[in-house]
Amino acid sequence: MTDRPHVVIVGGGFAGLLAAKGLRRTPVQVTIIDRNNHHVFQPLLYQVASAAVEAGEIARPIRSVLRHQKNTSVVLGDVTRIDPAARRVTLADGATFGWDYLVMAPGARHSYFKHPEWEILAPGLKSVEDAFEIRTRILLAFERAERAPTAEDRHRHLTFVVVGGGPTGVEVAGAIAEIARYALKRDFRHIDPRHANILLLEGGPRILSSYPERLSEKAREALRKLGVDVRTEALVTSIEPGLVTAVGWKIPTDTVVWAAGNVASPLLGMLGAPLDGAGRVIVTPECTVPNRPDIFVVGDGGAFTHDARYKVLPGVAPVAMQQGRYAAREISADVAKRPRKPFRYIDKGQLAVIGRARAVAEIGPFKLSGFPAWFVWIFIHIAYLIGFGNRLIVMIRWGISYITFERGARLITEAWRPEVGQTGGRAGGQ
Amino acid sequence: MTDRPHVVIVGGGFAGLLAAKGLRRTPVQVTIIDRNNHHVFQPLLYQVASAAVEAGEIARPIRSVLRHQKNTSVVLGDVTRIDPAARRVTLADGATFGWDYLVMAPGARHSYFKHPEWEILAPGLKSVEDAFEIRTRILLAFERAERAPTAEDRHRHLTFVVVGGGPTGVEVAGAIAEIARYALKRDFRHIDPRHANILLLEGGPRILSSYPERLSEKAREALRKLGVDVRTEALVTSIEPGLVTAVGWKIPTDTVVWAAGNVASPLLGMLGAPLDGAGRVIVTPECTVPNRPDIFVVGDGGAFTHDARYKVLPGVAPVAMQQGRYAAREISADVAKRPRKPFRYIDKGQLAVIGRARAVAEIGPFKLSGFPAWFVWIFIHIAYLIGFGNRLIVMIRWGISYITFERGARLITEAWRPEVGQTGGRAGGQ
Repeated sequence: MTDRPHVVIVGGGFAGLLAAKGLRRTPVQVTIIDRNNHHVFQPLLYQVASAAVEAGEIARPIRSVLRHQKNTSVVLGDVTRIDPAARRVTLADGATFGWDYLVMAPGARHSYFKHPEWEILAPGLKSVEDAFEIRTRILLAFERAERAPTAEDRHRHLTFVVVGGGPTGVEVAGAIAEIARYALKRDFRHIDPRHANILLLEGGPRILSSYPERLSEKAREALRKLGVDVRTEALVTSIEPGLVTAVGWKIPTDTVVWAAGNVASPLLGMLGAPLDGAGRVIVTPECTVPNRPDIFVVGDGGAFTHDARYKVLPGVAPVAMQQGRYAAREISADVAKRPRKPFRYIDKGQLAVIGRARAVAEIGPFKLSGFPAWFVWIFIHIAYLIGFGNRLIVMIRWGISYITFERGARLITEAWRPEVGQTGGRAGGQ
Repeated sequence: MTDRPHVVIVGGGFAGLLAAKGLRRTPVQVTIIDRNNHHVFQPLLYQVASAAVEAGEIARPIRSVLRHQKNTSVVLGDVTRIDPAARRVTLADGATFGWDYLVMAPGARHSYFKHPEWEILAPGLKSVEDAFEIRTRILLAFERAERAPTAEDRHRHLTFVVVGGGPTGVEVAGAIAEIARYALKRDFRHIDPRHANILLLEGGPRILSSYPERLSEKAREALRKLGVDVRTEALVTSIEPGLVTAVGWKIPTDTVVWAAGNVASPLLGMLGAPLDGAGRVIVTPECTVPNRPDIFVVGDGGAFTHDARYKVLPGVAPVAMQQGRYAAREISADVAKRPRKPFRYIDKGQLAVIGRARAVAEIGPFKLSGFPAWFVWIFIHIAYLIGFGNRLIVMIRWGISYITFERGARLITEAWRPEVGQTGGRAGGQ
C-alpha cells in the first residue's frame, strides 16, 4: 500500500469492473473483491442456459481483464462484514481492507417472494453456475421425455415454465422455444421436441412492463408464434416438485426457470443506510449513501430515484456500467479537488431478444420490432463484447447458429450448484 | 297409401335426405321421419357455434326441401320402436308406419366414454341447438371475463378447451381462436380477447388422425399460429364445473366443447343386427342388415367394413350422402327387377378448415394446406350449398367476414337446450 487513497470495490460485475477500469489513470490504489474469479457478460447468460454459446465465451477472469492495470489488485474472497464507522471490509477468511472510498457493487440475487424453498426447484439466471444448471435441466428434460413410460410423464418432461415476464424471462422462454423447435427437431425418435409446452407466467398485466405497451404486445405475439404460451396476470402461487400452480392452473412440469424478482445483496444492510423494499440502498443524486460521500452504491444494489423518466433506474447493464464509470469519475474529481456532479443516466433504450432474428427495442423515440430490432441487438452486443475479448468466436458461433439453427453448446454437464444458503450472501457481481 | 312399395326413412340428415331425393322418380311411396323439422348442413355447424353464420343459413325445413316431391311425405316425430318382424316403426305419439323398405339414417350422438355426466359441462356439436348453446357459452365467457373480479376468474373465463382433435375439434378450436383474435379484438375495455387460452386436447398421438401425417403437422402448426395450444396424447380424465383435467394438467375453464367421440343412435339396437363397439350396425356390402335386404343402414349408423382403403368408412358427410343415394338406387333396382350392386365409396378426399383462409386437404394424390386448401374447401361447400338454397346469403356473409374479420351472428340468445335424457334417443338426422 502507498499513501494514495485506497478504493475498495465490492463486486466484479459491470458496475464494479467499470469503476475499477475508470480509475486506471487516477492516483489511487484499487482493490476489487469478488467471490468468483470471473466477470460475466450477464445479458448473454440466457444464451449459455439455452446452449447457444459456451460459458467461456461470455465470462472472463477479472484478473485477466485488469491485467495491465498497475494500480489495481484483484482479491478472490467473500465479503462478510462491512464496518462504515471503521471504514473496513472483512472477508470470510478474516482478511480486512480499510478504505478511503468504498464502491459497493454487489449486485442482486433472485427474490422468491417469501418462498425460499422454491429456489431449488426453480433456479434463476444470475451466474454461470445458474446457466449451467438451467441448461442441464432443459436438455435432460428432453432426454427424459424420450424415455418416458407414460403420456403423463412425457407431458411433464416436455413442459417448461418460465416465471417472470421481464427481459430475462422473455429471452429464456424464447430461447427454450427455439431449442425445441429448431435445434433438437430431428434428434429424437419417440418425441417431437416441437410439441414441448413452454409457458411464460407473468404476474402483472403485461410482459416487458418497462417497455411501451405496443412493444409488449409485439413481444407477446412473437413469443406466441415461436410457440411460447404467454400468460399475464398469472401469479405463481406454488412450486412443488413436478408441479407449478398459477391462477388455478396446475401445470405438471420438471423444469422451471425463475426470472421474477430480485433482491439486493444483504451486505447493503451493513451500511447503516435507508433501504427500499427490494433491499436496495436509496442513494443520493451522487450514487452515495446519505452523508457518506466515501461510500458509493452502484448497479443493482442502489435505488436511484433522481431520474426524470424513471421512478427508480432499472437493474440493467447500461445503468450499472454508467454508474460504475461515474463513481470512478467522482473519485478522480475528489482526488483532483474538482467538485462532484450528480449522476445522469443516459438512456440508450431498451432491447429484448425473442429467439433468432426477432427482438423488440426502444431506442430514444424509435420503437423497433422484428428483424431490425434484432439486428440492433446483435450490433450493440458485439460492440460491447469488443472490449471483452471473445468477439470473434461468439460472432462466428452466432453466424453458424443463425444459418443452421444448430446449437453448439449442447453438452449436458454435471451441474455446478450455486452455493445456496451461505450466510454472507453473494458478494460477487453475479 | 297406394299399392306401391312403402319406403320408410328414419332421419333427415344427409343420408336420409339424399335417399328420399333419390327415390323421387321411383314408383314407391316414401315417408321420411325426423324429430326435428329441419335438415342441417352439418359441416358448417361449427360456423354457427362460432357466430360466423346464422343457423337459418345452414338449416332448412325438410318439408320445404322435399316440397316438390309428390311421392314423399314428411313426418315430424320421435321414433321409439322398430319391429323388424312386423316391419313396423312406432312413434312416441303412438303412430305406426309399416314398411316394405326401411332406410335407417338416424345419425350418431356424442359419446362421453362412460361419463354421461360430462355432457352438460361439455356440449358437443351435432345440432343447431348444440351450436347455439356453444355460441352462447363462448360469447358469454368473454362478457364474464370483462367483469371478472379477480385475475383467476378472468383466466378461467378466457380459457376454452376443445376435447377431440378430429375435423370438428380442429374447426371449432380454430374458429374460437379467430373470434378471440379478430372478431372481438376491440370490443372490450378490461380484457384483451386475444389473450384467451384455447386448448385442443387430443387423446391420440396426433390431430386429424385419418389424414396423412404431414397434414396433421401442418394443421397443428396453423392452429399454433392462430393461438391454439394443441396437446396430443392428452386424454381428458375429468370434467368438473370450472375444471378440466388431462395428463395431470388442471385447467380452470368454464367453456368446454366436446368433439371426441360418437355413438350411434340406440334405435339401431332394435334391428336384431350385430353392432360394433360404437353401436353401429355392421352392414353387408349392400349397406343392409345381414339377411334383411329390406333394411338399409346408411350414414353414421352403419359400420361399412368392405372398403379397400378404410377399415371402417368414416362418419363424414360424403359417405352419408353417397350411401343415401345408393340406398335409393338399390330400392329402385329392386322395383325395376334389376340386380343389386355392392356399395362403392368414391373418396373425394378430406378437408379440414383452420380459421380464415387456412385449411388442410387431401384430395386423391394431392395434399394441400394453407390458402389453396381453404379455397378448395370454400368451393366444395358452396357447390354443395347450391343444391340447398342459401348459397347467395352465405357467400356474401363469408365475403364480408373474410374482408372485415367481423362475425355477423354474435347475438347471445337464450340457449335451446338439447333434450338430454330422452329415452328414445335421437331419431333425428343430427
